[in-house]
Amino acid sequence: MTRVPMKCRVCRGPAVIDLKRHNANFCREHFVAYCEEQVRRAIHHFRMLEPGERVLVAVSGGKDSLACWDLLVRLGYAVEGFYLGLGIDTYSDDSLAAATRFADARGLTLHVVDLETTHGFTIPVAAGATHRSPCGACGLSKRHEFNRVARDLGFGVLATGHNLDDEAAVLLGNVLRWETDYLARQHPCLPAEGGFVRKIKPLYRLGEREMAAYCILEGIDYQVDECPMAAGNRHIGFKETLNDLERRSPGSKAAFLFGFLDRMAPLLAQADGPGDAEVHACAGCGEPTTGDVCAFCRLRDKARA
Amino acid sequence: MTRVPMKCRVCRGPAVIDLKRHNANFCREHFVAYCEEQVRRAIHHFRMLEPGERVLVAVSGGKDSLACWDLLVRLGYAVEGFYLGLGIDTYSDDSLAAATRFADARGLTLHVVDLETTHGFTIPVAAGATHRSPCGACGLSKRHEFNRVARDLGFGVLATGHNLDDEAAVLLGNVLRWETDYLARQHPCLPAEGGFVRKIKPLYRLGEREMAAYCILEGIDYQVDECPMAAGNRHIGFKETLNDLERRSPGSKAAFLFGFLDRMAPLLAQADGPGDAEVHACAGCGEPTTGDVCAFCRLRDKARA
Repeated sequence: MTRVPMKCRVCRGPAVIDLKRHNANFCREHFVAYCEEQVRRAIHHFRMLEPGERVLVAVSGGKDSLACWDLLVRLGYAVEGFYLGLGIDTYSDDSLAAATRFADARGLTLHVVDLETTHGFTIPVAAGATHRSPCGACGLSKRHEFNRVARDLGFGVLATGHNLDDEAAVLLGNVLRWETDYLARQHPCLPAEGGFVRKIKPLYRLGEREMAAYCILEGIDYQVDECPMAAGNRHIGFKETLNDLERRSPGSKAAFLFGFLDRMAPLLAQADGPGDAEVHACAGCGEPTTGDVCAFCRLRDKARA
Repeated sequence: MTRVPMKCRVCRGPAVIDLKRHNANFCREHFVAYCEEQVRRAIHHFRMLEPGERVLVAVSGGKDSLACWDLLVRLGYAVEGFYLGLGIDTYSDDSLAAATRFADARGLTLHVVDLETTHGFTIPVAAGATHRSPCGACGLSKRHEFNRVARDLGFGVLATGHNLDDEAAVLLGNVLRWETDYLARQHPCLPAEGGFVRKIKPLYRLGEREMAAYCILEGIDYQVDECPMAAGNRHIGFKETLNDLERRSPGSKAAFLFGFLDRMAPLLAQADGPGDAEVHACAGCGEPTTGDVCAFCRLRDKARA
C-alpha cells in the first residue's frame, strides 16, 4: 500500500495537518490562516470585541491560552496576559515559565498574581481545608481573580482559551444532568453586568488537537503537562466520551456544540428562568456576589484558618 | 476475601439482583414488585392509561415487549399483542415463535401481520430497493402498521416496550445534533391526534438489564438474539457510550432521561416550534400523513417495483 501525500486544500502544496471534521488538509501557512479565520468568525458571530479593543487574556502557560493570546495579537487586538499562580508545585513553576517565555519573546505584557503571596493560600491547601475537589477550588479562585484583576487593570473584557473540546465536554456534563441554569449561562460571550467584566472564548470553534498543532507550527513552547491535581476528574472523562463519538463520526463534537449555540441557547434564553439573584459588592473584597461574603473570601478564610 | 451475600432491601432475604443506580438489592418477589411499581409510576405520572383500559402492545418477541405485556396484564389492563413480521429470515421466525409461546401459555390474544403476506415486501428487500438503512425502513414500517392495526382493531392506545436504555440512547442521539423537533416529540406518552392513536412507553423507568432479569425470573422465554440487520447502527453505539458513563457514575442514564423529561421537555413544549404540518388521510392507505401519499406507501411501492 502506498500512501498518497496529503495536499493543502488551499494551495495544493504538501499538507502538515488533516482535519477530518472538515475533510480538509492544510499546509502550515494555510492552517494558521484557518485558525485565524475561525477566531475571526467567533469574534464576529458573537460580537465579542470591537476592532482593536484592549483585552486581558488569562494564561495558564498551556497551549490553548498561549495560542489564544497569539491569535488575538495577530488579529490586531491590544492584548495583555494574566497568570494566576496556583501553588501546585513544579507544575505551577513550569507553567509560569512558559507564559513568561512567550511574553518576553514577543515583548508582550504579562501580569502575575500568586495566590499564596497575595491571598495566603495555595490550591492544594484550599482543597484540603475545605474538602472541595481541587478543580472546584481552582475554578472558583480563577473566576474571582480573573475578574478582579481585569477590573483593577482597567480591562472591560477577559478572554480565556477554552477550546471546542473544553466547551463540548462542559456541555455534555451539563446536558447529562440537564443543569438548565448552567446551560443557560454556557456561552462564548457573556456580556458585562453587575461588576463582572465581559467574558469571551475566542477559541470555541477550534479543537484541542488544532491548538496543539498551532503552537508547534508557530514555535510556541507551552506547558505540555496536564495539571497533576486534575487526573481522573469528570471533565476529562467527558472528553474521552466525546473523543469516542468523534472517532466513530467525525464532526460530532462541533455539531454538538454549535447546534446547541444555534438552536438551544436561544430557546433557553427566552425561557422563564428562576430570575437572577441580586448582585452586590462582597463585604470582604468588593467583588460581585449574591451573598454577604463571596465564595472566594470564604474559601480563603477557611484555607488560612 | 469473603463475599458478603446480598440481602433484599425490602425483606432482608437473599437477593438475586443488585441495582447500582438505586444502591439496592432485591429478592425475586420484591424485584418483581419493584418493576410493577416503576410501571405504575410511569403510567400515573404521564397519565398513560385509564384503569383497566384496553391496550394493544407491539411485541417483537424480545425481552422488553414481552415484559411490557406481562406487566400491563399484572396491573389489570386489558392487553392484546400485535406482532409485525418483518421477513428477516430465521430471526423473524424465532421472534414470532417467542411471542406466540408467550401468548399461548397465558391465554392472551396475539394479532399477527406479516409484511410480505399483507404488503408484498420484506424489510431486507425494502432496504435494498430504496437504499435506506434497514433500521430506517423497519422503523417507518412499524410506526405505520402499529397505528393502522391499533385503529383497525379498535384500540385507542398502543404500548411499546422501549426501556430506559432505549430512550436514553435516542435522547443522546437527538441531543448530540440538537434535533429540537425530535426532542420535542420524545415523550413517554404522546396523546392521540389527527388519526394517530395514543402512544405510550410504560417501561421508560426500567433498564435493559432489569428487563432481562424480569423475564428470566418470570420464566418468559424471549428471543435473545439481536436483529442481525441492526449490527453497527448508531443507536447501539449510543447505548455503549451511555453504558460507559453509567459504569463511571451509576445513575447517569436515569438522571439524563428523567432530567430531560422533568426540566427540558416542558421548556421545548412551550417554545415556538415550526408549527405542526397539517395531517390528512393518505391517498393510498388512509393513514395520517402530511403528504399526498404516506412514506410507508411510497416505501412499499418502491420495494415491490
